[in-house]
Amino acid sequence: MAYKLWYWPAIQGRGEFVRLALEAAGIEYEDCARGKDGEERLLADMAARLGRAPFAPPYLETDGLVIAQVADILLYLGDRHGLVPKAAADRYWIHQLQLTVTDLVAEVHNVHHPVDMRAYYHDQKPEAGRAAKQFRDGRMPKFLGYFEDALAANPGDWLIDGRWTYADTSLFQIVEGLRYMFPRRMAAIEGDYPGLIRLHDQVAQLPGIQAYLKSDRRLAFNREGIFRHYPELDGE
Amino acid sequence: MAYKLWYWPAIQGRGEFVRLALEAAGIEYEDCARGKDGEERLLADMAARLGRAPFAPPYLETDGLVIAQVADILLYLGDRHGLVPKAAADRYWIHQLQLTVTDLVAEVHNVHHPVDMRAYYHDQKPEAGRAAKQFRDGRMPKFLGYFEDALAANPGDWLIDGRWTYADTSLFQIVEGLRYMFPRRMAAIEGDYPGLIRLHDQVAQLPGIQAYLKSDRRLAFNREGIFRHYPELDGE
Repeated sequence: MAYKLWYWPAIQGRGEFVRLALEAAGIEYEDCARGKDGEERLLADMAARLGRAPFAPPYLETDGLVIAQVADILLYLGDRHGLVPKAAADRYWIHQLQLTVTDLVAEVHNVHHPVDMRAYYHDQKPEAGRAAKQFRDGRMPKFLGYFEDALAANPGDWLIDGRWTYADTSLFQIVEGLRYMFPRRMAAIEGDYPGLIRLHDQVAQLPGIQAYLKSDRRLAFNREGIFRHYPELDGE
Repeated sequence: MAYKLWYWPAIQGRGEFVRLALEAAGIEYEDCARGKDGEERLLADMAARLGRAPFAPPYLETDGLVIAQVADILLYLGDRHGLVPKAAADRYWIHQLQLTVTDLVAEVHNVHHPVDMRAYYHDQKPEAGRAAKQFRDGRMPKFLGYFEDALAANPGDWLIDGRWTYADTSLFQIVEGLRYMFPRRMAAIEGDYPGLIRLHDQVAQLPGIQAYLKSDRRLAFNREGIFRHYPELDGE
């Protein structure tokens, strides 16, 4: 097995952006922390790593290389497996979009953990309520509108002409996650982003993704991950 | 002039990570929004960009390419100007560290704006107080300890043997920023990170950085940027 992926076993989380690219491309990987005692095994693996070690999961191991940070993993997979065009203008553009996805994901996490990452959501509910309101009203349309414009900048069906890239599979996950976390808000505004929704649907139809979504490798969203559905954070 | 850099004119902010790499390498650039009416000119430039546009400043323009996102800009400069070794193991490692710097910078901003990015600090002071405490006690030592270990993983004086990279100049800025924002906390703990402090001092001695820090191109830290000094956020 060429790749070993290490990530928390019970959530989609940040690891999902890596899984989606691997699955869409049909690249074999072992999701090492799934199964019995996965979390313990992940923590033990992390603790044993010295030298060029990850700050946090997910990380990908191959041929003696260990790469952490979602965007860095995707950059590596993109380069090695041709998941992005080789032209510099395309490579840096797709990576730029992925880094904007990274920013959005951090802000999504901040909605339910605005003042203390180590505490529970129920210990910061009033603060989360306020963070959710500014996210729903301001940041969410700003990010979605930006990605809609990025799609409109390309004449074809994807972010880059004629082919999916890792940023396309990442935008699929953004739509999925926001629909789960903010069903009322997304229902109200997603009509404003027809290109993004069409992209989401196209990614869902990729053969590798179709198979993945039906498999037990795709975990359900839940309240331990990055995207969490708390009705009280989904607005009036 | 080969490069045009666009960033908010009155703060170091995220743009500083790009400036430091350019200055250390002696690469010529124009800091386009400095000077009269800089903010208006930046906003007008942003508004006029269609197609592959930035989500936010900073962005770098060269040869018809426009690259946004600090880590993407540094990746590009690293590849084009040899600011990182060509070996894959080194390139992805240095980028991974830069992405961890990105995460840290987002958390630093979250300390003074935990619940509403669009509101003022004084409209979210109690929340910021709580966010600051968890940052000082938990996240700050975790990040600094991680970077210390990353340095210790290399036998030489830099993150990579024998030469500075853009991640070295970025870590210099992290030390500078945290000393400005949390002088009491940093004084209390920075002795735990001797490698990181030595790295900071080495970067300050690079000829390009020495010249830059003495010039009026280097802005002072202030309360409009990412790193902000509010004494009430610096501990008991």
